[in-house]
Amino acid sequence: MNKIYVIGIGPGEYEQMTMKAMKALENSDVIVGYTVYVDLVMTYFPKKEFLTTPMKKEVDRCILAFEEAKKEKIVSMICSGDAGVYGMSGLILELAEQYPETSIEIIPGVTAALAGGAILGAPLMHDFAVISLSDLLTPWEKIESRLECAAKADFVICLYNPSSKKRFDYLQRACDIVLKCANPGTPCGIAGNIGRDGEAMSVMPLKELREATVDMFTTVFIGNSQTKIINGRMVTPRGYEF
Amino acid sequence: MNKIYVIGIGPGEYEQMTMKAMKALENSDVIVGYTVYVDLVMTYFPKKEFLTTPMKKEVDRCILAFEEAKKEKIVSMICSGDAGVYGMSGLILELAEQYPETSIEIIPGVTAALAGGAILGAPLMHDFAVISLSDLLTPWEKIESRLECAAKADFVICLYNPSSKKRFDYLQRACDIVLKCANPGTPCGIAGNIGRDGEAMSVMPLKELREATVDMFTTVFIGNSQTKIINGRMVTPRGYEF
Repeated sequence: MNKIYVIGIGPGEYEQMTMKAMKALENSDVIVGYTVYVDLVMTYFPKKEFLTTPMKKEVDRCILAFEEAKKEKIVSMICSGDAGVYGMSGLILELAEQYPETSIEIIPGVTAALAGGAILGAPLMHDFAVISLSDLLTPWEKIESRLECAAKADFVICLYNPSSKKRFDYLQRACDIVLKCANPGTPCGIAGNIGRDGEAMSVMPLKELREATVDMFTTVFIGNSQTKIINGRMVTPRGYEF
Repeated sequence: MNKIYVIGIGPGEYEQMTMKAMKALENSDVIVGYTVYVDLVMTYFPKKEFLTTPMKKEVDRCILAFEEAKKEKIVSMICSGDAGVYGMSGLILELAEQYPETSIEIIPGVTAALAGGAILGAPLMHDFAVISLSDLLTPWEKIESRLECAAKADFVICLYNPSSKKRFDYLQRACDIVLKCANPGTPCGIAGNIGRDGEAMSVMPLKELREATVDMFTTVFIGNSQTKIINGRMVTPRGYEF
């Protein structure tokens, strides 16, 4: 069996994984992933073989998975959240052209937009845009134009990778772009360490989001013109009348 | 215990539900939902009490959940996919103001964008916009302007509710808007009956998507300028070099 499962393990908490993901892990010989996610999973599957590569070694990580699969092992490549949202399923499918004997199955998971949204309330009840603020692989100008267009079209905006040491002011820059067409009072929210120790959320107006402290484990939500705060939760009504 | 779980049950297949959702259902006295989704769940929890309302009776359905919870029952309100993406969590939180004694917990699930994406390949690996083509609660002009802006900003676009009997030509209209700034050869994909009997996917260029047959159980993906077809799957590379 020369097979790779590409698995979204959800936000972190074991129970937020789907049963299908859990069974695929159980069924695997080797589990490959970024160090942080492997640590999350290792507790529940102590007898499996685990292989990790650090951040920025994504290509090596995927090749490692294919090389293990070549040994007739069933391999799981794990990603936090969903494998298909800033995860590894794209790169695996690209590399698969060089490994035509390997069969690939992608098992989706709960991405941070959904898990963070559930903690904050219901920010994504209406049309929304998901944008990563990481400019490692994307020119900043493209990110800016997406922020601008999303704000103009009154999308709720969910931001991944809002900050890092090198990119400490990117959230501020993003807010300034959105502020060009959104009300400074627009309800916003942040969710951190979703499904993990230290899980936290807070809501605030857009003008304060500029100053919020975020890190690479924070997901940021910027409301649209309809978003409200109800009982401390961020809600974008779909428009039902009652 | 006066409690409502608002649960995203995932695309349909039981195993694509999270373990947390499954345990909340097990823990519930009453399960409330739209007829189609209740039928999906009923098989696995035959001993629970089930209550349904038809489509367009969403407000009644939510009130029913609150009234059951008032009887000191634990109630689950189920939604297909994720409860927070065109689901019931927003309306529940809005109505909760009238039922301050009820505690609400939202349990996220795998929405069709993720489940459909996994079947098609990896279309959502980069920034994307989710847009519903249903104009029941949203003016068509707003939907049009979102399509336009999303295409201009080179977002991958995921369309929910692409068609219904009354809205038979909406996908065609949406494609025509996107075609104003996207190449007619842009790879697109459709996924139908995700996680259910009759699951199907196909990929095609944007100019052919206009003519595709879709229904309310279809999720549509329009690639961005980077999206490719690799081995029959739709992949939007994130930009890793190898």
